[in-house]
Amino acid sequence: MKTIYDQALEFHKEYRGKIEIKSKVALDSREVLSKAYSPGVAQVSIEIGKNKDLAREYTLKRNTVAVVSDGSAILGIGNLGPYAAIPVMEGKAAIFKEFAGVDAFPICLDTQDVEEIIKAVKQIAPVFGGINLEDISAPRCFEIEERLRAELSIPVMHDDQWGAATVALAGLINSLKLRGLDKSEAKVVLNGIGAAGVATARLLLAYGITHITFCDSRGIVHPTRIDLTKEKKELLDKSTSRPEIGTLVDAVKDAHVFIGLSVAGALTIEMVKTMAERPIIYGLANPIPEIMPELAKEAGAFIVATGRSDYPNQLNNSLVFPGIFKGALEENIQQFDITLFLSVAEKLAAYVKEPSVEMILPNMFDKGVVTIVVNAVKEWNSNLK
Amino acid sequence: MKTIYDQALEFHKEYRGKIEIKSKVALDSREVLSKAYSPGVAQVSIEIGKNKDLAREYTLKRNTVAVVSDGSAILGIGNLGPYAAIPVMEGKAAIFKEFAGVDAFPICLDTQDVEEIIKAVKQIAPVFGGINLEDISAPRCFEIEERLRAELSIPVMHDDQWGAATVALAGLINSLKLRGLDKSEAKVVLNGIGAAGVATARLLLAYGITHITFCDSRGIVHPTRIDLTKEKKELLDKSTSRPEIGTLVDAVKDAHVFIGLSVAGALTIEMVKTMAERPIIYGLANPIPEIMPELAKEAGAFIVATGRSDYPNQLNNSLVFPGIFKGALEENIQQFDITLFLSVAEKLAAYVKEPSVEMILPNMFDKGVVTIVVNAVKEWNSNLK
Repeated sequence: MKTIYDQALEFHKEYRGKIEIKSKVALDSREVLSKAYSPGVAQVSIEIGKNKDLAREYTLKRNTVAVVSDGSAILGIGNLGPYAAIPVMEGKAAIFKEFAGVDAFPICLDTQDVEEIIKAVKQIAPVFGGINLEDISAPRCFEIEERLRAELSIPVMHDDQWGAATVALAGLINSLKLRGLDKSEAKVVLNGIGAAGVATARLLLAYGITHITFCDSRGIVHPTRIDLTKEKKELLDKSTSRPEIGTLVDAVKDAHVFIGLSVAGALTIEMVKTMAERPIIYGLANPIPEIMPELAKEAGAFIVATGRSDYPNQLNNSLVFPGIFKGALEENIQQFDITLFLSVAEKLAAYVKEPSVEMILPNMFDKGVVTIVVNAVKEWNSNLK
Repeated sequence: MKTIYDQALEFHKEYRGKIEIKSKVALDSREVLSKAYSPGVAQVSIEIGKNKDLAREYTLKRNTVAVVSDGSAILGIGNLGPYAAIPVMEGKAAIFKEFAGVDAFPICLDTQDVEEIIKAVKQIAPVFGGINLEDISAPRCFEIEERLRAELSIPVMHDDQWGAATVALAGLINSLKLRGLDKSEAKVVLNGIGAAGVATARLLLAYGITHITFCDSRGIVHPTRIDLTKEKKELLDKSTSRPEIGTLVDAVKDAHVFIGLSVAGALTIEMVKTMAERPIIYGLANPIPEIMPELAKEAGAFIVATGRSDYPNQLNNSLVFPGIFKGALEENIQQFDITLFLSVAEKLAAYVKEPSVEMILPNMFDKGVVTIVVNAVKEWNSNLK
């Protein structure tokens, strides 16, 4: 039997482009053409020239998002550059349309310089109503997102950060409920402090899950370490956990929750056995998780979630990013901030009326999800006013 | 009755985006998603990471063109900036798909600095198989196109230059044939030396129509003038006409052909009457030509062409740009040069089996046109090899 990788290559060879651009109107007469294009379109340009906000009324800007990458951190594969990013960004664009009716176009930038990326995104912004950053490596992604949010008045979201974080928190809300733990008492270990790790930590802290021990490839993130990034220092300051010097083996002892945003196999059966009773295990490394679900269960795990579609509890960004941008476009939201992702996570968790250990979040093909997320965005926006 | 401008505003208000982005595949199962997106797409990225030419085999790059503007010279209206450019570039993208099946996406750049435009276009190039520059003011457009052609290995064409020039030459080939004049004897006056004027002059000269007198808003372009751009000097050097100092009134005396790429009303009945017998008059200013066709005819014109759809002989770039890019994408052409536009003009002219004074070129809705242009591109490319 063919592997999924062979099947994917064949699929891409067959389609040679997963998305296409269509005219909404058949341009088959001079009459239509004179309205859609010259000479009539001149009047539309004149009106927008007087007031650029009218671009939202008269053009694709209203419903169009850029999916921007520099190819520096493609999926779990690494820095393969902008050409290798194309099929991923294109796939994301296809998901935007299929899941939420949002038009999205892949922009793969042939530069990995932070200032140049910021400048390029600002320069192409006029046509777009939102910017979805994707597969940009940490810590560059933090500055790029922060600067673009400050300097653009269309919403900017790095999905590897906030899509991942929002889904992780939503899942955790229901997991803690099932486990009978309050957010104030949950002891969490977060392994992997890259783009998704930092955002997930920030979102958990904002939600009120504050007892978090952070680990990276060098072990426990401890104040005495001299190699800490400004993001790691910030997270340490905000956490109520008082970690010892040590490794992940030490960190997980007696913890209720393990969240892995790191590498395959980072968590062993033995380590799970040292955690608190009936632990919650998120092994989100792709495609091979920190621990395989059957092993985690064998070691006593209560709830196991991964990024995989072939096990229960797939935590997938597609649950949230299409609806977040759809809502933002409909509401003409000028910018995102962390409180939005908090609202979306809470609403997404609440959407599952009866969560179970095998279904902490809705299925990504559940048509109701996008509506829930859009409504969360709208409610957040109306509370801002 | 509503004007075309009111109708166009209503049309744009109704559609709020003339183009949309579609997924070619319904993403309605985990099976499809795992091929189109994660995890399968990772293998596609890995392959392209090893050889970026594979982006043409596996992604939208194969069939996708950027329609790039900075909004500095929108239609005949002027410098209204990138937001005002959106509806025009979007209309162009719709024409690309409807006329030639080419996917095109509008890129409206929020900068009018030549170096920044060049850099931005190079940075966004990975996703595209071609770059259609549009509505960028002269003389900036010359340097931008030239530099991008030198620095990119996907074809770059400023349509205001080469689309206009190619159609003008194609029309002129058939006009001269009808008038019974050889290209070596035709005396041409070209009024308006902007983007379209310079390219039309270059293409006429390359074809062998060399007796051209150039005029701009200050009158005849004469070697003694101290305000000449480098393009105007180059054209003067190449022309076999030996102009006197004077105005357009002096220039048109005894000329066989007037080509106006200038402003409404630049040519009067009296001026036409001083031209050679049965002159050929192209009034290509939009939307109001240098002289209205009925007046030109009244003054003795043999053939009159304009940019308007409500008179015979509409010279419209849409006759050529969709097919030029379709051919370039199909042939994986690395770059355009002037000889391509020459080939296309000759083939387009020859496509009209029996040209008449009311039909020097095919109708832009003639489905055969794109095939003729694509074949011209293919033939040009195979002659290069």
